[in-house]
Amino acid sequence: MSSSQEQKSAVGGGNGRNGRAAYDLDAVLDISVAAFNEHGYDATSMGQLAARLGTSKSAVYYHVNGKEDLLRLALERALGPLEAVLDLPGALEGSAEDRLRFVLKQAVHVLVDYLPYVTLLLRLRGNTEVERGALERRRSFDTQVAVLVDQARAEGSLRQDVDSRTIERLLFGMINSIVEWYRPGGSLTRDQLASDVIAVAFDGLHARGEP
Amino acid sequence: MSSSQEQKSAVGGGNGRNGRAAYDLDAVLDISVAAFNEHGYDATSMGQLAARLGTSKSAVYYHVNGKEDLLRLALERALGPLEAVLDLPGALEGSAEDRLRFVLKQAVHVLVDYLPYVTLLLRLRGNTEVERGALERRRSFDTQVAVLVDQARAEGSLRQDVDSRTIERLLFGMINSIVEWYRPGGSLTRDQLASDVIAVAFDGLHARGEP
Repeated sequence: MSSSQEQKSAVGGGNGRNGRAAYDLDAVLDISVAAFNEHGYDATSMGQLAARLGTSKSAVYYHVNGKEDLLRLALERALGPLEAVLDLPGALEGSAEDRLRFVLKQAVHVLVDYLPYVTLLLRLRGNTEVERGALERRRSFDTQVAVLVDQARAEGSLRQDVDSRTIERLLFGMINSIVEWYRPGGSLTRDQLASDVIAVAFDGLHARGEP
Repeated sequence: MSSSQEQKSAVGGGNGRNGRAAYDLDAVLDISVAAFNEHGYDATSMGQLAARLGTSKSAVYYHVNGKEDLLRLALERALGPLEAVLDLPGALEGSAEDRLRFVLKQAVHVLVDYLPYVTLLLRLRGNTEVERGALERRRSFDTQVAVLVDQARAEGSLRQDVDSRTIERLLFGMINSIVEWYRPGGSLTRDQLASDVIAVAFDGLHARGEP
């Protein structure tokens, strides 16, 4: 089904032939995800999505088989890049602490680059099979980061007085909360944000060299 | 209205005289907040709340004037204790860094002690006047913590290379995320959690004295 959807997307634009706005799959996903984040997935109907797109329901069905299909494609845009981080050389080579820092920094990049999509992922409740599948993949990513935390502790790079699981949860709490307040285009760039997160997480807020 | 509600609560238990469960206001709030957190405030009806309480709608109306009144009383249980932290001696005396550490530690205590109530507060969208009033009080609390962050930076206790606003947001991100994963009664006590949060936030994850 996935490849047939992509074929549809490559064909392009909805009912543009009728003189109304033609949308490609990217635009349909962007607008759908904005609606899901604003009103909640359950509360958003295909009719409302079509209205927001200024098109007909059938034009939306040109791209996808239904609302759950939209959700699946949207969640893939957050999960795909997040999972890809773990296969980059920086996640595979070097000390466990270096690999952990790399993965967290890249996770912040993905979060900012795909902000509405990651927001959708982080707010899932697991009410449908698509949601549960996405939550399972997210948990698997978290577990792989937890392994890095354990390895960094074992190599003596991380403090030993706080439990690994607590460390991992506080780290993700800090990082995931970014979707609630970060707005791209402001004075805080993506790279500065990622480097601030790593600085605060690893070195803390306390001024170094101070009494 | 508030004092009349409290009087009602003091009178006690609903339609207990009919041989069904008698609930005081505390129990009504506990069960209502659990339902709001599970299904969302908008999606929960007074009829559903009465069913969960195993009583009639009129028994629930014995305690409150309606669903928004329940929400208002519930949010007060999170906001009242949180605001009270700022008036404690530890928040008013000592260096700005000591006051900041104290306020954050106490905020974790309130979060754990009133977990479902703080969860409700943190998930508000601001759809009703009661919600907007609560969000305004929460923002005011955040602003007062932001002032402490600024003061601690000014006294040279906090790192200068990360913007105050970013520091404040990452701090709250870490602390607020606790509602998503912390379950009271486990091996991680409230006091240990609060001390872990302060340790990670101020000193970071990196092992001290390591290369």
